[in-house]
Amino acid sequence: MKAEILTIGDEILSGNIINTNSAYLSDRLWSYGIEVAYHSSVRDEARPIKESLQLARQRSDLVLVSGGLGPTADDFTIEIAAQAFNKKLVQDKSVIQNLKKIFKKLKRPLAENNLKQALIPEGAKVYPNKIGTAPGIGLKLRKKYFYFLPGVPSELKSLFENEILPEILKNISSKLCFKTKTLHCFGKAESELDRRLRPFFKNRMNLEDVRLGYRAHFPETSLKLSAWNTDPEKAKKSLYTAEKLIKKELGDAIYGSGKANLETVLIKLLRKNKKTIALAESCTGGFISHRMTNVPGSSEVLKQALVTYSNEAKRQYLKVSTSTLKNKGAVSESCAREMLCGLLETAQTNYGIAVTGIAGPGGGTTEKPVGLVYLAFGSKKDMIVKRYHIPGGRDRFKLMVSSLALDQLRRFIKAS
Amino acid sequence: MKAEILTIGDEILSGNIINTNSAYLSDRLWSYGIEVAYHSSVRDEARPIKESLQLARQRSDLVLVSGGLGPTADDFTIEIAAQAFNKKLVQDKSVIQNLKKIFKKLKRPLAENNLKQALIPEGAKVYPNKIGTAPGIGLKLRKKYFYFLPGVPSELKSLFENEILPEILKNISSKLCFKTKTLHCFGKAESELDRRLRPFFKNRMNLEDVRLGYRAHFPETSLKLSAWNTDPEKAKKSLYTAEKLIKKELGDAIYGSGKANLETVLIKLLRKNKKTIALAESCTGGFISHRMTNVPGSSEVLKQALVTYSNEAKRQYLKVSTSTLKNKGAVSESCAREMLCGLLETAQTNYGIAVTGIAGPGGGTTEKPVGLVYLAFGSKKDMIVKRYHIPGGRDRFKLMVSSLALDQLRRFIKAS
Repeated sequence: MKAEILTIGDEILSGNIINTNSAYLSDRLWSYGIEVAYHSSVRDEARPIKESLQLARQRSDLVLVSGGLGPTADDFTIEIAAQAFNKKLVQDKSVIQNLKKIFKKLKRPLAENNLKQALIPEGAKVYPNKIGTAPGIGLKLRKKYFYFLPGVPSELKSLFENEILPEILKNISSKLCFKTKTLHCFGKAESELDRRLRPFFKNRMNLEDVRLGYRAHFPETSLKLSAWNTDPEKAKKSLYTAEKLIKKELGDAIYGSGKANLETVLIKLLRKNKKTIALAESCTGGFISHRMTNVPGSSEVLKQALVTYSNEAKRQYLKVSTSTLKNKGAVSESCAREMLCGLLETAQTNYGIAVTGIAGPGGGTTEKPVGLVYLAFGSKKDMIVKRYHIPGGRDRFKLMVSSLALDQLRRFIKAS
Repeated sequence: MKAEILTIGDEILSGNIINTNSAYLSDRLWSYGIEVAYHSSVRDEARPIKESLQLARQRSDLVLVSGGLGPTADDFTIEIAAQAFNKKLVQDKSVIQNLKKIFKKLKRPLAENNLKQALIPEGAKVYPNKIGTAPGIGLKLRKKYFYFLPGVPSELKSLFENEILPEILKNISSKLCFKTKTLHCFGKAESELDRRLRPFFKNRMNLEDVRLGYRAHFPETSLKLSAWNTDPEKAKKSLYTAEKLIKKELGDAIYGSGKANLETVLIKLLRKNKKTIALAESCTGGFISHRMTNVPGSSEVLKQALVTYSNEAKRQYLKVSTSTLKNKGAVSESCAREMLCGLLETAQTNYGIAVTGIAGPGGGTTEKPVGLVYLAFGSKKDMIVKRYHIPGGRDRFKLMVSSLALDQLRRFIKAS
């Protein structure tokens, strides 16, 4: 069964809004094993709407149409659908009643232009809209199913979840069960992952019944495993086998799964071990602290973060020596190490992270180019300083350096 | 001229990601008066890609295709495009050179599977990708223009803005001149803006030849003015009139225009006045510092930020008194004031911001609910403390509080 989502509205085609309805409906359909093969969007204009409906009828079995069900002059999806499929429009009494109820509640007279929302194609089914004036409409054309939904996301969701989805699941007699798992990877490029995992998942094809997909979102890559099977236990087992295999091949580069991210994983690890942490940030300007404090409960482990942007602040709070700043400079291995020493001394936490680098665009030299960064992490007993070069702009720099910091400390704690 | 945007990728059809590329490209094309008539999306599969390309060729004059240009096995947009349009694939030397350069920088051997990114349809034009391995590709088919872009949003934007858009604008010979201006507003809801500005722009319609649109992106609202005219001077003048009118009506709530945001505006103001600033953050966890340090050149004015997450850190660095912490608590007007005093004392900057509050989800009481925050700002001579209540979750809280902090200090400096 192939599904298509057709969204109608000038506001989509003009880029004024981002089309979240298509993503929402797709995610929901896939989670029941229904393949969404096409998204299409057209403006509030008769000809493209008609042609898109006819194309969808040719190539898809289930078509969800959203938008153009409102009362205004440029809402005419249902009228065009009736034309496209040679159906008469008839007035539906239940819709009229619902409209009257809504307007009574609003203490306003029923507006003339709302009446057109009660015109539906002959033979269509009406699904009451509990939070708006536009009803959902279902139309069966031989073996093809069309469902029309309002474009307002809250109304669309309410109608889809309560009325349309149960109907779809009744109509399809799929016994196929669908399970997914997402693994998060840091430190490996998509091409490397593909090269290493391809022997097991040939071209993202089946390992038994598991599909593997990648999704790069700088600076990380997610691996999405999905398994279909008529036997849910078998699907679960296949996923488990695939996950084990990937973890064996990639080891510590897989840092978590599902809703985890680098910061939640690190916070969880610290909480589990009952350890505390402090940060000394220069070039990342508070971003590591921001990411960690996004995690509820982070205050249990993160005691303080010092954004020592100026040399003076590095001296004042972290006791970085004047000679280091003078002879080696603020962006140096020595400075990173002294920042971490000073931090652990003043904050009295179990672990610390200190970073100093050149985010750019200014401030680079031949010897110390933009993108150079020193990352110090560890405990009083065991400190490590690493040097990286991350060119490509200030935003990418802060993202990558903060991720490296979170990831390196995670690996350090796990190894110790 | 009708444009179409075709986005390719399983991650779109599965609902795993929201299709922001289509909205972005549409918005940009419309801002030059180019009508975007179709969006379509298909999976990483040969047949639907081929059919969609052929359909786009029939119905559209300009087609932007994104996705499927990567090195992995399911990236084959270009291969299918060559098939669809009966073109041979040829190896492009400039792409190979660029790949070699990138891999040399990464200190890794050029991966075999990246080589396929150098195969382009005969007669196509290559646009170098400055931040990734997939080049942009342009293909002219009689009077139809196809441009292929990578799906990664940052690479797509960079290639589109620097290479593709200038080329498109050269090719179209539209005489209609289109000018836009975006004004940024903080502290007014869209409905209030609409109510106050409607008398001038009746229902977002013409004020002479200017259109006004709103775009809410929490916690701000942008006002987008656009003017079309065959006479560029007239369009410019209309925009100017409209802008003046809006600023008169809304005053200081309009804080900037174009690419400005609250942090760039504050940094610019501080730099202009040759003033310095320091931050003491508790509940915002470094987010104000992160936002300010996103601005190149911020190191000139931002000297330090102390994320004093624990009571101990508030005492240690900001000299908040034990009695205040004990009797009034860390989330109190007194604590905010003492944090700011201590900060200005230790940092010796002209201005300071101190925030303390309860981001949640835990830590709230009836007296001090989640979302309560005290914001202190000003100079040694003149300190102001304000109390806000911002419910709605940790992310919204941090966003709103950091915006309030940046905005309040901006207003303070402008008034002093």
